[in-house]
Amino acid sequence: MEFSSKLLENAVYEMSQLPGIGKRTALRLVLHLLKQPEERTTLLSDALTKLKSEVNFCKRCHNISDTEICEICANPKRDETLVCVVEDIRDVMAIENTAQYNGLYHVLGGKISPMEGVGPQDLTIGSLVKRVKEDNVKELILALSSTMEGDTTNFYIYKQLEGLDVATSTIARGISVGDELEYADEVTLGRSILNRVPFENSIKAS
Amino acid sequence: MEFSSKLLENAVYEMSQLPGIGKRTALRLVLHLLKQPEERTTLLSDALTKLKSEVNFCKRCHNISDTEICEICANPKRDETLVCVVEDIRDVMAIENTAQYNGLYHVLGGKISPMEGVGPQDLTIGSLVKRVKEDNVKELILALSSTMEGDTTNFYIYKQLEGLDVATSTIARGISVGDELEYADEVTLGRSILNRVPFENSIKAS
Repeated sequence: MEFSSKLLENAVYEMSQLPGIGKRTALRLVLHLLKQPEERTTLLSDALTKLKSEVNFCKRCHNISDTEICEICANPKRDETLVCVVEDIRDVMAIENTAQYNGLYHVLGGKISPMEGVGPQDLTIGSLVKRVKEDNVKELILALSSTMEGDTTNFYIYKQLEGLDVATSTIARGISVGDELEYADEVTLGRSILNRVPFENSIKAS
Repeated sequence: MEFSSKLLENAVYEMSQLPGIGKRTALRLVLHLLKQPEERTTLLSDALTKLKSEVNFCKRCHNISDTEICEICANPKRDETLVCVVEDIRDVMAIENTAQYNGLYHVLGGKISPMEGVGPQDLTIGSLVKRVKEDNVKELILALSSTMEGDTTNFYIYKQLEGLDVATSTIARGISVGDELEYADEVTLGRSILNRVPFENSIKAS
């Protein structure tokens, strides 16, 4: 792609460094900003710069927060003995949206992935073990994605907690509510039969 | 979507104002920037702010340029008597990439669209008419998209040029090179038969 302006080329290049944004999309976005009032560009770049420089992570659960301890951790109505371990803050938002969970969280910041050079020391696993030892945590719910990396991370955490007095569970995998059995993949369907639950439980849940 | 941080919410909101970027994509992009070194965010916001504040449009053809007159207009090797009228600078880049055109351009900045509140006075049509009157322009190639708005704009320009000594043409519409006839839409196929060209011309072009 040949640009008639260095400034434009530079802006398009920086925009195309974002994940999933190619050169063409970047050009479209940058030209859109050019057509808008200058204010729009200022608001966007200020918001990004401010977030990056002033962002704060909860000292306890590592969720993004504007305060030292996040709103969830600071809420006395939540069950402190229950901690749900997730990969990133998007998972916290997803679980919060269900309004079904009243415990706390622990944001790992990723999962162990030798391919991408992410080891246990890059995640907040040390801080998790410390929380289990020092706080009154009775159950950990491992809610990582069910990929090889997620399973590895689950197992690593499980090993680190050996000998500590804490129950561990993982979230249930099965057929999505509303889905037809015939369209489900075999692994999910197989697991949902192995991990079947008493019918009374399913009545209580709905 | 509930955010645990106002800074994050604000950054996601501003990002989601870009066209084709929804709230979820915006969140993904912003969280990506958060994981990267601070430099990445600074480079992006600086590039955008600098482009917006220092951007310059060629006084002659309205293409984006870092100089008063763009490289294309300033190039003495290009044919000044031929001007190709396009909607925006992406079209200039597309035509330049073909390496088949040696004339100049005129960037309208959009097309007449009453639905979107864009009238002739919002485009650079006045400047185009002035160019035709004052410069040595012998032929205008109208290369707008073949939509109702494009056709309206073409016709408006054509009317404005009535009585002036300039030839007007539009780019050829037809079946794409390499496409099968059976998959072409009827309108394109119909036009390509109506506007058939002598076989000798097609030999020369290839």
